[in-house]
Amino acid sequence: MSPPVKLGIVGLGRWARVLVRAAQRSQNLKIVSGYSRTPETREAFAREFGIAAASDLRQMFADTEVRGVILTVPNEQHFPVAEQAARAGKHVYTEKPIAHTLEDGVRICELEARHGIRIVVGHSARLLSGTRLMKAAIQRGELGRLACIEANFSNERALELTPQNWRWYRAQCPGGPLSQLAIHQFDSLACLGGEIIQVMSMASKLSPAGAEVDDQSMTLVKFADGKLGYVGSCWTSPGIFSIRCFGQKALMHYEVDFSSWDHPDRLHESSSLYVQRGKNGYGKREELELPQSNMFVDELESFARAIATGELPELSATNGLAAAAAVNAALLSIDRGGETVALAEVIDEARARVRRQAKAA
Amino acid sequence: MSPPVKLGIVGLGRWARVLVRAAQRSQNLKIVSGYSRTPETREAFAREFGIAAASDLRQMFADTEVRGVILTVPNEQHFPVAEQAARAGKHVYTEKPIAHTLEDGVRICELEARHGIRIVVGHSARLLSGTRLMKAAIQRGELGRLACIEANFSNERALELTPQNWRWYRAQCPGGPLSQLAIHQFDSLACLGGEIIQVMSMASKLSPAGAEVDDQSMTLVKFADGKLGYVGSCWTSPGIFSIRCFGQKALMHYEVDFSSWDHPDRLHESSSLYVQRGKNGYGKREELELPQSNMFVDELESFARAIATGELPELSATNGLAAAAAVNAALLSIDRGGETVALAEVIDEARARVRRQAKAA
Repeated sequence: MSPPVKLGIVGLGRWARVLVRAAQRSQNLKIVSGYSRTPETREAFAREFGIAAASDLRQMFADTEVRGVILTVPNEQHFPVAEQAARAGKHVYTEKPIAHTLEDGVRICELEARHGIRIVVGHSARLLSGTRLMKAAIQRGELGRLACIEANFSNERALELTPQNWRWYRAQCPGGPLSQLAIHQFDSLACLGGEIIQVMSMASKLSPAGAEVDDQSMTLVKFADGKLGYVGSCWTSPGIFSIRCFGQKALMHYEVDFSSWDHPDRLHESSSLYVQRGKNGYGKREELELPQSNMFVDELESFARAIATGELPELSATNGLAAAAAVNAALLSIDRGGETVALAEVIDEARARVRRQAKAA
Repeated sequence: MSPPVKLGIVGLGRWARVLVRAAQRSQNLKIVSGYSRTPETREAFAREFGIAAASDLRQMFADTEVRGVILTVPNEQHFPVAEQAARAGKHVYTEKPIAHTLEDGVRICELEARHGIRIVVGHSARLLSGTRLMKAAIQRGELGRLACIEANFSNERALELTPQNWRWYRAQCPGGPLSQLAIHQFDSLACLGGEIIQVMSMASKLSPAGAEVDDQSMTLVKFADGKLGYVGSCWTSPGIFSIRCFGQKALMHYEVDFSSWDHPDRLHESSSLYVQRGKNGYGKREELELPQSNMFVDELESFARAIATGELPELSATNGLAAAAAVNAALLSIDRGGETVALAEVIDEARARVRRQAKAA
């Protein structure tokens, strides 16, 4: 048993508390330092969790005991804080999306090689036990050649929006559920089906709340190998998370009871996964056992493992950038009236803008 | 109790036998005459079912006892045979699609007013008990404002195609599962969500069989009121039929175990319908009882009712044309690299071609 990897956490809001509680269940990592701009927040955090509060970021980044930092700061701050951490030689875990803009996403990806660090982007949905079981079945060849993947992630958020909520505004929350929920499923599709090369998307605004943002989105996806994918996201209905994989030998369907989302270690109790096998049993379904798992513990442990071994994590910056690029390409497709948009187009343009801005600076 | 409406049936293949068996379970209609071009086929049919064989179509259409005819002839013959029947004053039931071309579909629609008859197009999926229950719940307002509808209809057909099968060929089976399976779901979406105005579509060919036709299709749909819809169809996987409606107050999900498809009165035993209600129970699901039903009996009874009452049937020619137009618009979208295509565009063009051809004739 190696000693736990010691970590700091920056940004001490609601989500930080979820991650700290998850961290406390792991033997492989230990959060030893926390920072928030507001002194009251960091003092309350220190009292509640018995974790030392850093008086400023430099203090945390100067602490040689701290090998990596967890960022739960607003999306616009992902890159600036990640860069500061990387310059101090700290590995970085950041919540999804990788960054607020694709340019910042590109810059975060570049930190890895430049500073010899590992970056983990918290696309936790990839670690849901049903997704893991489907991925393992695909890798064992049980589904045969995959043809289609359908996914949906929806909830009622748009019915409750007010102008006080940042999600009300197009600039901060582009595409509504597209940037907030669908992004998880673009990553799930990439996890299960490999590289996504094109998207086309439709959006609509139906909530009576009157927010700026669209509250419905549906996106079609083409994978590099010709498979098709679909990601739907409705922001005005009861919550659902589902993924269905269509293969030549079998079909698998995973569905999560959304009411358990905040208690990942109980998700398996009210979720379901079935397989419908080919030829000798079309239409016959077998319910599979879903093991208990905790995607938040798992993503933090994967961060600790990347730090300890130097290995590229599955929740990599590259994967995080691809999911953000799918969202941006879908937004562009909506702007262009549903035209097909290549992910390479939006990523290449973001890289070009980063190069131009670097030269200009 | 009125006496049963007497009907003829034209085309005595596999599907005719399914419909005749369904007809035998109804008190409201009676098939009294059958016709096939092949004398052996019609004699075998007469022997098996005790139904008189007509020696030619004229004989059947001259029979004043026969008030309507059921067509299970190849798609190209829907219009020519329907026209002959209509001229003889017979009401017409035709299998889906309404016709092989949209022009013929337009012509079939025109027969109603011209000859004072009723036309029923056999979009039986609309009559599945789960679809009926969802439609009733939507009409009662239980789902609140509908936002999205997702549907899928898939099976393994493309894995078994050979050049001997008409479905191998692009000209006869355009878009593969798009024209064969997805068409049912376009009609289901219209049934549950109202008029579809636009589609955009992606297709792919993945089966090792080597047929001409695409074997995967995914289509996004925009409804007249801004709702979004999705219809997926995979022709290289175990079968599935599912519909999910997202409303502001509740979400409903219906799924049919495909292995029971050929025995519609047993479908309810292995299918499922759940509702997930809003606000006070997001994530809590209630399984609903699916009553026994038989969509084939129901569609024939709706034909008999339209004949007896003169009322416009729900499985109308207009609805059949709209479903075929959605397929044609999706095919055009695929040809145009995924562009958004308005259904009005393809229907108006078909009408214009019909008018030009009528003038030229």
